[in-house]
Amino acid sequence: MESTVSMDMLVSLCKRRGFIYQSSEIYGGLASAWDYGPMGVELKNRVQNFWWREMTQLHDNIVGLDASILMHPRVWEASGHVENFTDPLVDCKKCKQRFRADQIPEDNMQTHTCPDCGGELTDPRQFNLMFRTHLGPVESDGSLVYLRPETAQGIYVNFKNVVQTARMRVPFGIAQVGKAFRNEITTKNFIFRTCEFEQMEMQFFIHPSEDEKYFEQWKQERFEFYTKMGIRASRLRFHQHGPDELAHYAKIAFDIQYEFPFGWKELEGIHNRTDYDLRRHMEYSKKDLTYLDDLREGERYIPYVIETSAGLTRTVLTVLADAYDEDEVEGEKRVVLRLHPELAPITVGVFPLVKKDGLAELAQEVEQDLRQDFATFYDQGGAIGRRYRRQDEIGTPFGVTIDYQSKEDRTVTLRYRDTMEQVRVPIAELCDRIRRAIREYRRTG
Amino acid sequence: MESTVSMDMLVSLCKRRGFIYQSSEIYGGLASAWDYGPMGVELKNRVQNFWWREMTQLHDNIVGLDASILMHPRVWEASGHVENFTDPLVDCKKCKQRFRADQIPEDNMQTHTCPDCGGELTDPRQFNLMFRTHLGPVESDGSLVYLRPETAQGIYVNFKNVVQTARMRVPFGIAQVGKAFRNEITTKNFIFRTCEFEQMEMQFFIHPSEDEKYFEQWKQERFEFYTKMGIRASRLRFHQHGPDELAHYAKIAFDIQYEFPFGWKELEGIHNRTDYDLRRHMEYSKKDLTYLDDLREGERYIPYVIETSAGLTRTVLTVLADAYDEDEVEGEKRVVLRLHPELAPITVGVFPLVKKDGLAELAQEVEQDLRQDFATFYDQGGAIGRRYRRQDEIGTPFGVTIDYQSKEDRTVTLRYRDTMEQVRVPIAELCDRIRRAIREYRRTG
Repeated sequence: MESTVSMDMLVSLCKRRGFIYQSSEIYGGLASAWDYGPMGVELKNRVQNFWWREMTQLHDNIVGLDASILMHPRVWEASGHVENFTDPLVDCKKCKQRFRADQIPEDNMQTHTCPDCGGELTDPRQFNLMFRTHLGPVESDGSLVYLRPETAQGIYVNFKNVVQTARMRVPFGIAQVGKAFRNEITTKNFIFRTCEFEQMEMQFFIHPSEDEKYFEQWKQERFEFYTKMGIRASRLRFHQHGPDELAHYAKIAFDIQYEFPFGWKELEGIHNRTDYDLRRHMEYSKKDLTYLDDLREGERYIPYVIETSAGLTRTVLTVLADAYDEDEVEGEKRVVLRLHPELAPITVGVFPLVKKDGLAELAQEVEQDLRQDFATFYDQGGAIGRRYRRQDEIGTPFGVTIDYQSKEDRTVTLRYRDTMEQVRVPIAELCDRIRRAIREYRRTG
Repeated sequence: MESTVSMDMLVSLCKRRGFIYQSSEIYGGLASAWDYGPMGVELKNRVQNFWWREMTQLHDNIVGLDASILMHPRVWEASGHVENFTDPLVDCKKCKQRFRADQIPEDNMQTHTCPDCGGELTDPRQFNLMFRTHLGPVESDGSLVYLRPETAQGIYVNFKNVVQTARMRVPFGIAQVGKAFRNEITTKNFIFRTCEFEQMEMQFFIHPSEDEKYFEQWKQERFEFYTKMGIRASRLRFHQHGPDELAHYAKIAFDIQYEFPFGWKELEGIHNRTDYDLRRHMEYSKKDLTYLDDLREGERYIPYVIETSAGLTRTVLTVLADAYDEDEVEGEKRVVLRLHPELAPITVGVFPLVKKDGLAELAQEVEQDLRQDFATFYDQGGAIGRRYRRQDEIGTPFGVTIDYQSKEDRTVTLRYRDTMEQVRVPIAELCDRIRRAIREYRRTG
C-alpha cells in the first residue's frame, strides 16, 4: 500500500515540522541554500552516522578521515579540476539572463535565441565551477584558494600518511564525510542539488588487476546499503554512464538512482578512477605515492581507486521521500514518516494520559530516565490521539503513555508507529524493549 | 601523578598514530590547515557527539540546528561583522612582511620600525577577517558572499522559524556545530588557532530581566561539562573579559581557559549578547523578531541571548593534552592517553595470544560480534605486551585477549587501560561488561 508523495507535500512537511528552512529566509533567502531545523539536523546526523558506522566500524579494512575544506591550490591543478571542472554558459544579450548551454532547448541553441525573451544569445563559454577565495589580506594569484568541489582529493593527498600511520595494507579504503561547494547555476528540486552540500565518499585502494572485481563488489554493497536504511528496492536502480557522461577521471561509472517525485535521479556514484588521481598527484607534487606490496612479492605500483560517492543531503531527501506515507486512522487522514528507527529524529515520545493526578510527574520521571539512552520528546498537551499524530508525522517509532494504571503497577503502554499496536510494559523493562525492537528492525528491515 | 606534556610530544604522537596531519602536506602544506587522520576523526566526532548529546538530548529546552556556511550577505552587515570584525595590520616597507599591529612590540610601534628587519612600518590599517567569495559566474558586488566567521548568526536568523515550528517557549536554546572561517594572519600552536575551524555554539534565548541568572547558570554548567569529559579541574579557570577585550555585541563575557602546554588560553566563551543580534536583524530585515510571551501575560519583547561558544578542534587539543600521560611498565616507558572511554577512537582492542591453534579464528569471531556495538581494532601481530602498548598510546580503554583457556571454556581476559588490571569474563557477557564499565565511568568521572 504505497502512497505517492509530491514535492509540495514534502517541502510543506519539512517547513511545518522544522526539518528544513530556506537559508537566510528573513533576507529573502540565498539561492538554493537550506538550513536544517531541529528535526532536520537530527535526521541528517543519523543518516551520516548510519553511513559512517557501515563504512568504518563494520569494515575492518576501511578507516575514516576528515580533511580541511581549504587545500593547497596545486591540489586542484593536479586533480584536473582547474582545467576540466567547467560548465558551458551562454548569456542573453537582451534580457541579460545566463543559462547552461546544455540545458537550453536545441531549437534555441541553433537559432541563438533566448528561450525566455527571444533575444540573441552569446556563444557558450566555459565557466569553472569552483568557488574562489583568498588566504591572507592580499587578493592576488599567490593567495588564491578554492572551496573544495569534492572531498575525494583530501583522501588522495593523505594516502601515504594513512598507509604509514594507520598500518593499512592494500586493499583498503578511506571514508570521509564533509562539505563540498560547486558554483552551479541550475538549482532546483529543494535540497536535491545545492551549491553547498555534503558528500559521503569512500575511496578504496586496490591492485590494478583487481579493479573489475572490486568495482562489482562495491556496486552491489552500496545498493544494499540503501535497502538496509529502509529504502524500498523498487525505487532504486543502476544507471551506467555513457561515454559523454563520464567524468574526466573515470574509466567506468555507475549511478545508483532513486525514483524521486521528479523522476529517476542520481543518488550515489560508483566510479573506477583508476590510478588517475594518485598518478597526477605524484607528477605535480614530485612525491612518491607508489605502494610497496609485501603480499605480492614486493611489487611496487600505483593503486587503482574504486570510489563510492554519495550526497548526504540528497540521501536525506531520499529517506524523507521514501518514508512519507498517508493512511486513515479513525476516519481521519494520518501523515506518517515510516523512518528506520535508527534514523528517526526522535526515538521515543512520552505522554501522560492527563496532566493531573501525578501522571505528568511520573511521565517526566520516565522521560528523564529514557533520555539517557534515546532522543526523547515529552508532550503533555491536548488529546492523546493528537499527540500520537504529531509524533507519527515526524517519524517517531515508539510512544510511551503513562495512565492511571501506571501509578498502581508501574507499567506503561508502548505504542508502535507503524502498526499502532500497543503493549503493556513494566517501566523497568522499557529501555531494553525499545533497544531490542530497534535491533530487530536492523535485522529484518 | 601528573606528567607534563610538551607540544612537541603531542604533535609527534598525533602524526605518528594518525590523529592529525598537516593539510596538503605533499604540496608543502597550507598555512595552519590540518587534516584529521583515522584516529583524529574518530576522536573529533566523539567530542562533537559528547557536546551534542549533552546540549540537545539531555536538555529538553534545547534543540539543534544546522545552517549553511554561505548566507545572505546582509546577515553580516546586520551582525556588525562587515564593520567591526577587523584586525589592524601594518606592512614593513622594506621586507614587505605583514604584522598584526597589536602583536608588534610597543617599542617598534613607537619607532615605526619592523621587528624583523628594522625597516619602516606603515600606519595600521583595518583588515576584515571574513573570507569573501562569489555566488554565480560573475564576480561583482552583487554576487559577493562571505564564509561565515561564526555559526551563531545562522541561529539568530532562524529564531522565528524554530519558535513557530518546534513549539519552543522562552527560555530555550538552539545548539549548532559547524565550520567557521577567519582570515587571520597569526597561526600557531598546532590546531589551537586555524583559519578554518569548527565551533560548537549554543544560543539561549531569555527574558531580558533574567540575563544575570542565566549567565551565571551557563557559566557553571559549561565549566562542569569539561570535567564530565574527564578534563582535570585544576587546569581549568575562568577569565573575565576586560572592557578592551569585549566583542562589539557583548555586555559581559567570561572565558573558560585551559592550561595548555603554551599557557592559559581560551577554550570556550560565555557571552551575554543582550538583544543586540535579534534587534539588528529586525532593523536590517524589517521582519518582526519579537517574542510574544504567554507565560508573562502576553508581554512582547526581543529576547536576550546567553551564548556558549566553544571550539571543537580546540577542545580536541585540550582532550589530547589533558589525557597524555607517561608511566613505566615492566621497566619500559609507556605512553598512554587516559581518554574518557566515550571519547577514545577505539573502544576495544581484540588480540589472540598467538595466531595459531585456532586462537586467531576465535578472536576474529569475538571481534565481529563486538563491532556491532563498539569501535574495535583487531591485532594479531607481535608480542602481546607490544600490542597493548599500541592501544594504550591511542587511548583504547579496553583490551580483550583470547588465549588457550578461551577455547576450552569460552572466557577471555578483559584488560583495563588505566589500571592494567585483567579480569576473566565469559565471551557471552563481554558486551554487557564493557557497556557497564563505560556507564560507571560516566557517573564517576
